[in-house]
Amino acid sequence: MSEPVTVSVATPDSRYDILIGGGLLARADSWAGLPRSASAVIVTNTTVDPLHGDALRRALAPLHRDVITVVLPDGEAHKTWQTLNLIFDHLLERGCDRKTVLYALGGGVVGDITGFAAASYMRGVPFVQVPTTLLAQVDSSVGGKTAINHPLGKNMIGAFYQPRRVICDLDTLDTLPAREVSAGLAEIIKYGPIADAGFLDWIEANVDALRARDRAALAYAVRRSCEIKAEVVGQDEREAGLRAILNFGHTFGHAIEAGLGYGEWLHGEGVGCGMVMAAELSALLGLVPAAFVERLQRLCERAGLPVRGPRLGIERYLELMRVDKKAEGGEIRFVLIEAPGRAVVRPAPDALVAQAIERHLAA
Amino acid sequence: MSEPVTVSVATPDSRYDILIGGGLLARADSWAGLPRSASAVIVTNTTVDPLHGDALRRALAPLHRDVITVVLPDGEAHKTWQTLNLIFDHLLERGCDRKTVLYALGGGVVGDITGFAAASYMRGVPFVQVPTTLLAQVDSSVGGKTAINHPLGKNMIGAFYQPRRVICDLDTLDTLPAREVSAGLAEIIKYGPIADAGFLDWIEANVDALRARDRAALAYAVRRSCEIKAEVVGQDEREAGLRAILNFGHTFGHAIEAGLGYGEWLHGEGVGCGMVMAAELSALLGLVPAAFVERLQRLCERAGLPVRGPRLGIERYLELMRVDKKAEGGEIRFVLIEAPGRAVVRPAPDALVAQAIERHLAA
Repeated sequence: MSEPVTVSVATPDSRYDILIGGGLLARADSWAGLPRSASAVIVTNTTVDPLHGDALRRALAPLHRDVITVVLPDGEAHKTWQTLNLIFDHLLERGCDRKTVLYALGGGVVGDITGFAAASYMRGVPFVQVPTTLLAQVDSSVGGKTAINHPLGKNMIGAFYQPRRVICDLDTLDTLPAREVSAGLAEIIKYGPIADAGFLDWIEANVDALRARDRAALAYAVRRSCEIKAEVVGQDEREAGLRAILNFGHTFGHAIEAGLGYGEWLHGEGVGCGMVMAAELSALLGLVPAAFVERLQRLCERAGLPVRGPRLGIERYLELMRVDKKAEGGEIRFVLIEAPGRAVVRPAPDALVAQAIERHLAA
Repeated sequence: MSEPVTVSVATPDSRYDILIGGGLLARADSWAGLPRSASAVIVTNTTVDPLHGDALRRALAPLHRDVITVVLPDGEAHKTWQTLNLIFDHLLERGCDRKTVLYALGGGVVGDITGFAAASYMRGVPFVQVPTTLLAQVDSSVGGKTAINHPLGKNMIGAFYQPRRVICDLDTLDTLPAREVSAGLAEIIKYGPIADAGFLDWIEANVDALRARDRAALAYAVRRSCEIKAEVVGQDEREAGLRAILNFGHTFGHAIEAGLGYGEWLHGEGVGCGMVMAAELSALLGLVPAAFVERLQRLCERAGLPVRGPRLGIERYLELMRVDKKAEGGEIRFVLIEAPGRAVVRPAPDALVAQAIERHLAA
């Protein structure tokens, strides 16, 4: 077992570490220096608890007098106020005070909802992320975004709130369905086009190893993704400008997710297909050659991602993109690629957006 | 009409002004320099909207293209997730983006819930407080505390989130029921014992003028209260230490409020009676002479506040105080007075706490 890698993340108010490696749950030093409250609460779901709940409970037993587990229903459809309230009910019924540490054990849904619970419970308690999906390890580890969905929009209610630590145990990825590995690869691929042409080359050379869950390949991919995200977020915590490039593929992707109803497509699947559409739009605007669209599409296919969107109707796509919270005054701003490794954020004519979507719809 | 007074509040991340004076809603300079988003949302309630809604809509008409009003049901009983969601529903149905400014027009409930809505909507939009009760003007203007209640506890779910400005128009107090003026005086009185013996003397000399809504007396009382609170909060935004002294009377007061069911007693009424109990506890611990308890009780009576608590049963009082979020690991920490103008925070033996309550229960 090799030594874990650490990525340090600095925010205006705090700093914390992301630990990346195999066997981290069982290593005592993964937990050193975290707050030792009397009570701690593990928030997880019905899928992850049987797989990794005991390992985390064993790890926390020496740190806290009481370790409570709250098991949520699994899936994006449950990223709601009702589920959030389940956590609050448990915390209050068990008399948890404002020093109680929350541990998020699971994927992005568990991380987002637990983070928002931690941000809001008594106006803020400490929390630690233990992401068990590849997507959550690269996407939720950095940036402090927490949220729940509203019937009228994804991630509409939330907070910026930083974890005390993120523990990415690569062993937890062994139990991940192949479809979810692919969804995680979408967010990893994303960092190439927007920020690092060399990383895009590396992913193309290693996509098979990543799908086979090669430890060394995963460790590098997670680390490099977190590093790039930390660099971008560090310059722009509140998403006024630069941070928006992290949403490459997301505007189209969210429309697909929302249009089909949350949970039909995985978030990463929406992002994969959305990146192809956003690349197409970049090409239609003359920013990149058509060959770049083909290159990205080919990589997404090799990663096991869908590259053709559902036939929701073009008007419906546009409508869903306009209500997205990245829209301002009804104007949609797209993350476009100018060259491999360089992104730009700007509006685009509806006609070209429609064409970009049309070209990548399912038959 | 005299010039408004300004109290500047600095927080680690921001600074903002509290404007205090008569006729502020109608003065153009009250609104100068605030964000001019396309849409703005006034959140108010069924009582305040008919009294002051039109004045605020007139004031905002030159600043925003669309001004939407969301009218909530009135009362602490509605400081719930359901009411909060009403705001989110409106914001999303009207396509409000992350630049939309929220204006809280009303008392503490409207301010707390609107502040939390602003903190959480799309992870944070700007908001302006327009408090129309004396309590809200002195209590919610400073400190950035926003929250909703949970069935198991008051203010359990919330955020620290600062307004862009607070506009305390003293004219709005003319429509306030006398009972609510008294409730506001409780929080004003509080600042004397905990921080400023001279202010306590001043209140004793001016309590009749305050109840008669004398403009000059109100302006001074609101200003001095905000100044003291800003000074305390500036040193300790997250309530780790010093800020706790602002909760003088609140531990007992919250127990009364919760024990009777939110809405039976006004928050300020709970605080008034709670201060007398907390002063009694201070005397029982030998910190102040019994004469100080009598002095504070007499002042609360003159302010029109109840000074005898409901007979909930001592055990119920203690239980309610233990679940209060200021308790840590089940230990209740009380704000006690060492001398007029000086507070200390510490635990106390249950037997003395029980005695302090017993001595101030209704016949």
